[in-house]
Amino acid sequence: MDSFGSIFRVTVFGESHGSQIGVVLDGVQPGIPLSEEDFLADIDRRRSGARGTTPRKESDTPIIISGVFEGHTTGAPLTVLFENNNTHSSDYSLLRNVPRPGHADYTASVKFDKANDPRGGGHFSGRLTLPIVAAGVVAKKMLVRKFEDYTVNAELLEIGGVTDKSAWPALLDKLIAEGDSVGGIVECTAIDIPVGLGEPLFDSTESLLSHAIFSIPGVRGVEFGDGFKASKMRGSEHNDPIGLPDGSNIAYPVKNGAGGINGGLTNGNPLVFRVAFKPTSSIHRPQETYDFSKEEMTSLVVPGRHDVCFALRTPVIVEAVTSIVLADLMLVDGARKTK
Amino acid sequence: MDSFGSIFRVTVFGESHGSQIGVVLDGVQPGIPLSEEDFLADIDRRRSGARGTTPRKESDTPIIISGVFEGHTTGAPLTVLFENNNTHSSDYSLLRNVPRPGHADYTASVKFDKANDPRGGGHFSGRLTLPIVAAGVVAKKMLVRKFEDYTVNAELLEIGGVTDKSAWPALLDKLIAEGDSVGGIVECTAIDIPVGLGEPLFDSTESLLSHAIFSIPGVRGVEFGDGFKASKMRGSEHNDPIGLPDGSNIAYPVKNGAGGINGGLTNGNPLVFRVAFKPTSSIHRPQETYDFSKEEMTSLVVPGRHDVCFALRTPVIVEAVTSIVLADLMLVDGARKTK
Amino acid sequence: MDSFGSIFRVTVFGESHGSQIGVVLDGVQPGIPLSEEDFLADIDRRRSGARGTTPRKESDTPIIISGVFEGHTTGAPLTVLFENNNTHSSDYSLLRNVPRPGHADYTASVKFDKANDPRGGGHFSGRLTLPIVAAGVVAKKMLVRKFEDYTVNAELLEIGGVTDKSAWPALLDKLIAEGDSVGGIVECTAIDIPVGLGEPLFDSTESLLSHAIFSIPGVRGVEFGDGFKASKMRGSEHNDPIGLPDGSNIAYPVKNGAGGINGGLTNGNPLVFRVAFKPTSSIHRPQETYDFSKEEMTSLVVPGRHDVCFALRTPVIVEAVTSIVLADLMLVDGARKTK
Amino acid sequence: MDSFGSIFRVTVFGESHGSQIGVVLDGVQPGIPLSEEDFLADIDRRRSGARGTTPRKESDTPIIISGVFEGHTTGAPLTVLFENNNTHSSDYSLLRNVPRPGHADYTASVKFDKANDPRGGGHFSGRLTLPIVAAGVVAKKMLVRKFEDYTVNAELLEIGGVTDKSAWPALLDKLIAEGDSVGGIVECTAIDIPVGLGEPLFDSTESLLSHAIFSIPGVRGVEFGDGFKASKMRGSEHNDPIGLPDGSNIAYPVKNGAGGINGGLTNGNPLVFRVAFKPTSSIHRPQETYDFSKEEMTSLVVPGRHDVCFALRTPVIVEAVTSIVLADLMLVDGARKTK
Repeated sequence: MDSFGSIFRVTVFGESHGSQIGVVLDGVQPGIPLSEEDFLADIDRRRSGARGTTPRKESDTPIIISGVFEGHTTGAPLTVLFENNNTHSSDYSLLRNVPRPGHADYTASVKFDKANDPRGGGHFSGRLTLPIVAAGVVAKKMLVRKFEDYTVNAELLEIGGVTDKSAWPALLDKLIAEGDSVGGIVECTAIDIPVGLGEPLFDSTESLLSHAIFSIPGVRGVEFGDGFKASKMRGSEHNDPIGLPDGSNIAYPVKNGAGGINGGLTNGNPLVFRVAFKPTSSIHRPQETYDFSKEEMTSLVVPGRHDVCFALRTPVIVEAVTSIVLADLMLVDGARKTK
Repeated sequence: MDSFGSIFRVTVFGESHGSQIGVVLDGVQPGIPLSEEDFLADIDRRRSGARGTTPRKESDTPIIISGVFEGHTTGAPLTVLFENNNTHSSDYSLLRNVPRPGHADYTASVKFDKANDPRGGGHFSGRLTLPIVAAGVVAKKMLVRKFEDYTVNAELLEIGGVTDKSAWPALLDKLIAEGDSVGGIVECTAIDIPVGLGEPLFDSTESLLSHAIFSIPGVRGVEFGDGFKASKMRGSEHNDPIGLPDGSNIAYPVKNGAGGINGGLTNGNPLVFRVAFKPTSSIHRPQETYDFSKEEMTSLVVPGRHDVCFALRTPVIVEAVTSIVLADLMLVDGARKTK
Repeated sequence: MDSFGSIFRVTVFGESHGSQIGVVLDGVQPGIPLSEEDFLADIDRRRSGARGTTPRKESDTPIIISGVFEGHTTGAPLTVLFENNNTHSSDYSLLRNVPRPGHADYTASVKFDKANDPRGGGHFSGRLTLPIVAAGVVAKKMLVRKFEDYTVNAELLEIGGVTDKSAWPALLDKLIAEGDSVGGIVECTAIDIPVGLGEPLFDSTESLLSHAIFSIPGVRGVEFGDGFKASKMRGSEHNDPIGLPDGSNIAYPVKNGAGGINGGLTNGNPLVFRVAFKPTSSIHRPQETYDFSKEEMTSLVVPGRHDVCFALRTPVIVEAVTSIVLADLMLVDGARKTK
Repeated sequence: MDSFGSIFRVTVFGESHGSQIGVVLDGVQPGIPLSEEDFLADIDRRRSGARGTTPRKESDTPIIISGVFEGHTTGAPLTVLFENNNTHSSDYSLLRNVPRPGHADYTASVKFDKANDPRGGGHFSGRLTLPIVAAGVVAKKMLVRKFEDYTVNAELLEIGGVTDKSAWPALLDKLIAEGDSVGGIVECTAIDIPVGLGEPLFDSTESLLSHAIFSIPGVRGVEFGDGFKASKMRGSEHNDPIGLPDGSNIAYPVKNGAGGINGGLTNGNPLVFRVAFKPTSSIHRPQETYDFSKEEMTSLVVPGRHDVCFALRTPVIVEAVTSIVLADLMLVDGARKTK
């Protein structure tokens, strides 16, 4: 469903071409300074317009309609709305019968018995990551209030397998010319997280993070610390030593093959994980699909405006999702420590 | 926390060296034939004893104490218990102050303020995957009742990076001799799943599967379909075509780069994902850790009995977890289709 | 928190004097015809303006911003907004330090460390029942689609202990003159509910209905069937006989002392329960309270506009809440019957 | 379903005539001293044997199988089992086709398509209140740790409308002679609860308490403070004044018409509510019911052993349920106050 979290609970709604999209945040702590300006920096990082991203431009102005009073959170549900202005629905009118490969068009049409909103992917659009970014801003503020130096940083490590960033502009230009697209890998690091966040078994830190990460459209894989490479390592090589350097009460950050988590609980090391994004599904080249009205195979060139590499816009989304999960784990841990 | 699922809800309890461990299954459909014998095949697949696994031998006899009447599920909570017989707690008495690298000893001790049960990892032990396997047996029965040919199959593709299975015995013998351990990669495939399981956004099929998979101790990564490789591919290469072969109502299984999921919803293709397991953390070689009683670094050789490669025992656990998630998604989808 | 329901999940947000209030409905079934006009009849029944209700007049125009496409629900979260136009916040500026007896002013101020929005009760205002009424409209449509003749009817049986409705105008006039207020009892009946809705133990039909009913501000009691009188009855007198009249497959509606529920599950009889509403807390007479700025007891005449008997406006809210619970139980039951 | 609570989460399983019943408690705080002896006092209060209660005698010995180590809670799921020894299933063999009026026999049979365990009411039996009492013991300990003087006390005010306790033995003897039964009213008071427990709107203190109370078999009504009488009162009469007596930071307990709750949040006054229990459904007199095998009306004298007035055994159950709700609210409030 469209809610996530135990105490800090995020509910997202809206469609790509509806009038507004937004998010309701329940369980926000009261008394946190918050204004609409606080959202702008992260929203700007998600925005399109750079080389390789869609030319669809939205103002993406956040409107707080509940949960803030006199510049502070009230503890009541905090709702942020965004208007959809720049929609070109006519672009998509043909796609009801001819689903785009790689999109939810076909699966959503079956699941919802053709009642789903097909315009621009409807509720399955990447545009829904905008309210998620807004939720992340609030989550970060909650985390920083308790873990003063909490910092989360996600970075695009490679696109299309190319790690040399100086080569990216040429790659993107080539893809634009060819009408093709490319994926990428984002690495996320979060620091100043105390030991012991996460819950046993089903609510391990990795469980909740991967749950939330796979909610971002286009994710194909998630790995923590040494990740898939760990499967090829010896225990003597992969295991992290435990220590208390410099009178600190956290484990050695020397190696961190576990990505900052042991037994599902944070261990004081930086939290480190990587996310694999697929190439943008919408490309300007003919693709094989099925015409459900004519009941025959057909070839489709997806119309409309698209990111050549939507992974370029995802680091801030990964950060948001990470903070959302950690904020909730912080509250749940606080609950368990109540005395 | 220790429960998972929306309607088919799995609650796991117990400790490695407690008297009993078990699982409560809520939301089980009534009228499904079920006896204790039904659990034995999967339990046997998880059992240790083969080369590379721990010599700890447990009878692992399932005892149904609620939810079954006259050989059929009743619809009331179904509880299965297992006794712990073969526990050697003295093995672990020293570990309270000297946490084992790679385990939850240190993190659980901090989180629970030293009240956690440290014996054999306590509640964080891999032994808790036994009741999860039991839950998977019930989930499979629920799935098969509706999706007649539903089949899930997980296979260990490689251990320590070695894909040639004929080379595994020698590798394991070498590791035993060296007192070391190794990880592995499991691939899971599930078929005869209809189009449209999964829920939008936060309850995407990948979200719920990865959530549950990361509950298995020792998982470092999860990837669907083309997985991390997708990040290096072009859209024209990664996208799956859509079609209706042979009058079927499911998408082409030709390529399946998406692993059977589009927009978080199953697309009728086989569900395919891979799981990376780390090497067993407990090795018979000295490891650097911290002695919290003496407040100094120390070297530890973990006592007790361990799997050299616990990944050998995980395929049936991965299958169980997959079926648990799919059974719940089946029920939630059924809820939404109620009319 | 501010969400309720398992599959049909209602999330309410907003404050009495904020810019907008609203509701997000998750788990709505797709394909249900729905327009903004569909909300008007129930909204109108909740509206103030009649004798004994507050003169605050709001347009209460529902604005659907997500979840509906081409006049039908899509299955994605359905969001309805209402604007707050007629707010007189200056009326309430003094109440931050001088809490009104019977309101949440004091308790919310302590809970949220004085960060709560105090204007008009903020998030604790009865105005939040407006989006709940909107949720009820959608719930009723879902119920009617499956249970064709589903009908819910709530009626105000008495106000201030007076059951003769012809005497109510005089009573209300008297109370207005005296600056006082009065409570009332609402009886709710729902018919054409099949046998077997409700879940064992914690999600009994009574549990979920009373949970939701006590979310309505001002409720002091809930009783089903014979209610409190049952405690004074003999078993031979209270028990309902069981039968299959006229070849029907439902229990006899002859007596219905259980209010349509046995063992937490609906029994096919009409669902019948009563709700006790307290008198409106805001009265135009001096009340004893504490001035937290002056740290002394004080006398307060609550300013602003109030219902003399807000119970007059509650029947449609009780119906809404009943339908919300039954719609969710219908979906959960559908989940359990999936095969 | 069979779980309740947000952080302190109670899952109950078992059947009246199964081998064992029990409860899993998730979210228990670590480090609380707990042994099996701690359960005995409350279990004893629930036990039958006194005049007016069933002669079925069970040892009701609690067995802790997880979540406790060296005499303290560990923070992992805490499981308590009870064996069913004294079951006479043959008593109930006829009831599969002839449902007992007032019981779940008929409704459960329809809901679960005749797969439910019918022996002694199966999962719908009042015997399931035994593990709930055990959960209450743990909840009380959690509450007392934080709210030192927390005390909950439930008392049976009347049975069959008779408030004079000296008249009860004669009434019960008369009912036994007549083969009839009677209900009762329990009043519950809890003190030393701080201001501000409860959550806005759907998780109001009354919502959660009534939810849990209506999980107890046989409850017909719940009312807080002035309860149903409030509906007949004027605002000037019902409203509680607010004050800070003796430098305390809690509201005046002078009148407490609200039962200790304003706006769904505790106000520092004693929490006070009443619960109406119906008469025991099983009576030794012929009742009209339907024989589903013969498809005709029939007369049934319920065999087996029953409480003449099960309300006699409920005060400790009401206390348990109250403490379960308050413990969870304490943890959720702790979560929201985390900083």
